Amino acid sequence: MAAGLNSPAEDLPSLADVHAAAGRIAGRVLATPVLRSEELDEAAGCRLHFKCENLQIGGAFKLRGAMNAVWSLDAQQAAHGVATHSSGNHGAALARAARSRGIACHVVVPAGAVAAKLRNIQAQGAILHRCAATLEAREAMVRQVLQDTGAVAVPPYDDARVIAGQGTAALELFAQQPGLDAVLVPVGGGGLIAGTALVAKGRPRPICVIGAEPQGADDTRRSLERGERVTAMVPETIADGLRAVVGVRNFALIRRLVDAVWTADDGATVAAMRRCWECLRVLVEPSSAVPLAALLARRGALAGRNVGVILSGGNVDLDRLPWERQ
Amino acid sequence: MAAGLNSPAEDLPSLADVHAAAGRIAGRVLATPVLRSEELDEAAGCRLHFKCENLQIGGAFKLRGAMNAVWSLDAQQAAHGVATHSSGNHGAALARAARSRGIACHVVVPAGAVAAKLRNIQAQGAILHRCAATLEAREAMVRQVLQDTGAVAVPPYDDARVIAGQGTAALELFAQQPGLDAVLVPVGGGGLIAGTALVAKGRPRPICVIGAEPQGADDTRRSLERGERVTAMVPETIADGLRAVVGVRNFALIRRLVDAVWTADDGATVAAMRRCWECLRVLVEPSSAVPLAALLARRGALAGRNVGVILSGGNVDLDRLPWERQ
Repeated sequence: MAAGLNSPAEDLPSLADVHAAAGRIAGRVLATPVLRSEELDEAAGCRLHFKCENLQIGGAFKLRGAMNAVWSLDAQQAAHGVATHSSGNHGAALARAARSRGIACHVVVPAGAVAAKLRNIQAQGAILHRCAATLEAREAMVRQVLQDTGAVAVPPYDDARVIAGQGTAALELFAQQPGLDAVLVPVGGGGLIAGTALVAKGRPRPICVIGAEPQGADDTRRSLERGERVTAMVPETIADGLRAVVGVRNFALIRRLVDAVWTADDGATVAAMRRCWECLRVLVEPSSAVPLAALLARRGALAGRNVGVILSGGNVDLDRLPWERQ
Repeated sequence: MAAGLNSPAEDLPSLADVHAAAGRIAGRVLATPVLRSEELDEAAGCRLHFKCENLQIGGAFKLRGAMNAVWSLDAQQAAHGVATHSSGNHGAALARAARSRGIACHVVVPAGAVAAKLRNIQAQGAILHRCAATLEAREAMVRQVLQDTGAVAVPPYDDARVIAGQGTAALELFAQQPGLDAVLVPVGGGGLIAGTALVAKGRPRPICVIGAEPQGADDTRRSLERGERVTAMVPETIADGLRAVVGVRNFALIRRLVDAVWTADDGATVAAMRRCWECLRVLVEPSSAVPLAALLARRGALAGRNVGVILSGGNVDLDRLPWERQ
């Protein structure tokens, strides 16, 4: 990655950046396990290999990108800490990464953010900055915080360091399970799939990369169809981790490297979430179940193949599971 | 193991039997992952390494013993299938193991057994034999089934083949995490801890083995105190997997090889179960949380040590979690 340049075209990460990230974050993130289930193989008509980032520290792959961003700063850059405006998994991951380096983390929090998530971020030692719930108020507050503190901004996905970090999950998966033909990845802002695609397409025998979006937040699929980012979309889906609009850098990489983007409706996603629990004894958040839901609706699409599925996160509220007690 | 002999003293498995079992079941069971959590380390005052048998195929370590028993039969013995009277995890595991060898599995089921568990056993292709809920009726029905079918009995824990199979989880754990000082294991019938102890005490530097029982089912602790098996106890605990009375062979090995048995009350167990979810994103059944509960109540007992904890199973009903929705 060309440090210091900010034009998207110049600021795309490469496979080498993913390898560098893997070295940088080794020992700071978990090498998550890969699980299998004959029942799910049968249902999908192919051999599935689930990469369990839901078991990552903090319960999501997000720690990879955050760790890479924090530990790629030089001492002078790091001195004033890092800042972001995500009050979800990225905010918590960045707070944890900053704490691992002993630097400050500022998180801008719009009114109405989920209290439990904020407590989680604060528990990691981050400083919260509250603002109104509009995008304008949030951006103004971020500018203010950066100016006041001298902190380095670490966006949740549209960032070369973050994308490279997220790609390390695929590096691990392909080493744990050689011979994969395809990999399925949920798409929100596009950090995970962009990093995954860099790795998958850098193999001697490239691996097919398929994204999966909620039907109610299919901006990436639409963007690919139109040939440019579709940003004016109001997401409506239970998969709260996939509501973001795909980032500029992310879309540039997806357009170049991703083979297809599938969608799944929320009903299929909740059913897939439940099957993950029944067959793998792994409880994931709805966002993680979108790829399996999309695949089960396309039985035969990858018939007989070896398919990786990245389970992106497990931060679901046990007391508010998306179904009625039976 | 001395094949064909039925006297307990002669029929105890050895470390060599565990190694033989590992070879026999390799590829038929999952090498389950080991997870860590800084938060739990801090709470316990030591470094914890969680062996996730809840992620084992079928959701419990039970598949190891069942697979070993089924695949250690010669062709003639196997011809008429296997039989058991467990309608819980062992029944399901034995059914799965039998199916993997293409032989019949008979499960004797007392009236009042949980319908969901029976469906699970039937889904694996086992034949159910129903009887009254008394111990006498159950034993009579097992004798009848064995006589009618010629099947080989595979008891849930008081069996050398089963104990040797369960010990393979510890073999794996000690290879995945060298340098453990102690290992904590839940104790019900004693299959898992007996197998674990064979492995732990066969190391060049023996590893401390600590059992954990529910306060309301502490027959093993009492048996150790008295120097003989205490069998007249009515268990009262939420940890349904640990209600069994310790087996004859199991007690013989525990008495010889286990360093201590701790207990935990159900409240502490449910709290530990919840902490496993919060810190590891792993949802276990109450039985699995008893060792962590016992340890957290004894903060400092293993200060600074490297401690393995076997999470024995994850077969909990998501719709009936043991706490109120908040």
